[in-house]
Amino acid sequence: MPELRKDPIVGRWVIISVERGKRPTDFLSTTQRKKGGFCPFCPGNEYTTPPEIMAFRPAGSLANGPGWSLRVMPNKFPALQIYGDLNRTGEGIFDKMNGVGAHEVIIETPDHNLSLSIMQQKAVEDVLWAAFLRLSDLKKDQRFKYCLVFKNEGEVAGASLEHTHTQLIALPIVPKLVKEELDSARQHYEFKERCIFCDVINQEIADGKRVIYENAKYVALAPFAPRAPFETWILPKHHDSMFRPPEKNFSELAEIFQRILRQMDRILDTPPYNFVIHTSPFYDEINDYYHWHIEIVPKLTRIAGFEWGSGFYINPTPPEESAKFMREARI
Amino acid sequence: MPELRKDPIVGRWVIISVERGKRPTDFLSTTQRKKGGFCPFCPGNEYTTPPEIMAFRPAGSLANGPGWSLRVMPNKFPALQIYGDLNRTGEGIFDKMNGVGAHEVIIETPDHNLSLSIMQQKAVEDVLWAAFLRLSDLKKDQRFKYCLVFKNEGEVAGASLEHTHTQLIALPIVPKLVKEELDSARQHYEFKERCIFCDVINQEIADGKRVIYENAKYVALAPFAPRAPFETWILPKHHDSMFRPPEKNFSELAEIFQRILRQMDRILDTPPYNFVIHTSPFYDEINDYYHWHIEIVPKLTRIAGFEWGSGFYINPTPPEESAKFMREARI
Repeated sequence: MPELRKDPIVGRWVIISVERGKRPTDFLSTTQRKKGGFCPFCPGNEYTTPPEIMAFRPAGSLANGPGWSLRVMPNKFPALQIYGDLNRTGEGIFDKMNGVGAHEVIIETPDHNLSLSIMQQKAVEDVLWAAFLRLSDLKKDQRFKYCLVFKNEGEVAGASLEHTHTQLIALPIVPKLVKEELDSARQHYEFKERCIFCDVINQEIADGKRVIYENAKYVALAPFAPRAPFETWILPKHHDSMFRPPEKNFSELAEIFQRILRQMDRILDTPPYNFVIHTSPFYDEINDYYHWHIEIVPKLTRIAGFEWGSGFYINPTPPEESAKFMREARI
Repeated sequence: MPELRKDPIVGRWVIISVERGKRPTDFLSTTQRKKGGFCPFCPGNEYTTPPEIMAFRPAGSLANGPGWSLRVMPNKFPALQIYGDLNRTGEGIFDKMNGVGAHEVIIETPDHNLSLSIMQQKAVEDVLWAAFLRLSDLKKDQRFKYCLVFKNEGEVAGASLEHTHTQLIALPIVPKLVKEELDSARQHYEFKERCIFCDVINQEIADGKRVIYENAKYVALAPFAPRAPFETWILPKHHDSMFRPPEKNFSELAEIFQRILRQMDRILDTPPYNFVIHTSPFYDEINDYYHWHIEIVPKLTRIAGFEWGSGFYINPTPPEESAKFMREARI
């Protein structure tokens, strides 16, 4: 079973695959993924994946067969394992727990050639619904504190399969960066009785120069201090601590999300990218201090190594300029 | 002039190049660096770099001419600018300052074909001396709080020139990850009256399974919760808060540092890598709670994107195994 280990100095938890660890030679074979080869995510190949957890499919069609428009199943090579009690142990000054968690995959569409930016908007809504429904189910498991929803698009961004998919990882801990946001937002609220994200949104909308797009319910902006060029955040304009559909409707979120991805595709020539949803932990989903949002980062620069070791970022594109390029992109 | 901007939520400072920002099309030309082309770091081409700040060269040889064995000069494309007063300003809820700082390059050897792992050990000592001497000089500048010493080796790790070099960035702020280590180490010291790094070193040496190598003064180990495969730290065995030569001698540090790089080269086929020196800030260099060290990370995996957005790392190689592979490497 994998292990969750905590760095004793900065308090960061990491997943360590203790059983089937990668050996040095495993990193040397950096052969490109074959294009056009067998795809386990394509219709007809359902038998090659673990059994589905849920799917959007016509009434009467059989589970784990074709006919679906969206499919969710456990990751075949999970970073964490779903079975077993959570077991916290120490090792001298070190802290660890066994790697209990869920690792699921949302196959966003049966069409191998589509992506979030070019599929029907309704299909993007379905992806958001699937993520929300899985979160709603996973939070019933008392072992889990948090669930990360994220996407690696393109090999450079970490995707190991080409067929477009989103992933979920349910965790017995809160990831470090989310915890920092939560702690800081809580402090701001205690001091000012206001959500810091709401303050940022109000100032950004009044100012305008870093706003990329807004619709009735959401705003997309280039953050004031972005770590990377064209980093973009999508936030609900009205305070909400938890990723969920307002009025049981994801259409406006799908609209702005897809628009941003299309604008990135247009001006950056369909870049590899990552997105991650930051929402409140399961044990405190509805609160006044935290504001859920999506962070999207195209993978354009390779200089992450030094920055990775220092927490210090050098960004060659000011957010005012990236926002302007994005606003002016013809999609 | 570049700007230093602070993320209002997590408190992370980033450098933003506000004047000559990279446009979207600048990211599209990902042509490989030409091998064997003109090298501004090779002897005879000194006229193409900014004038040298210091050099190790025979008595009588002229500055900015050939004959040197090591050369330090300002980065031709600095992330920060050396001139001007530090000017802190607000922009509503946002904080920024002008990008005052120093950005220097240490050309480690005149030989274009050498690297830290294969040069003479004496040359590695000289690199450490150069870094130490530049730190000693830069700390006299009251505008600077911290100086990062780091290396990007190989294009994947962010190097834009092939000729082996180390960089220094002096900053008016302390980088986030270093600040977190300092804060956490200070808390541990207040609670236990002991340095947390000393505690880790003692436990690791007693335990042995994550120790890669030790000599009289230093230990190299795979940390308990590494973010990436084959992440390695080198620490002084006796407490020292500040990067400096014990007894005016860098020979043992050069020995262990080069040995680790050779072991990595051997088992990982000369991987691209980054190293960064974590030391105390200029304003508190000698203290009981922090323990300077070198962090080395070969760039083997591409999955940093999602981890970048969450602060959550999945490491496929347990440190016990990576330490074993490193120990057994024949160099």
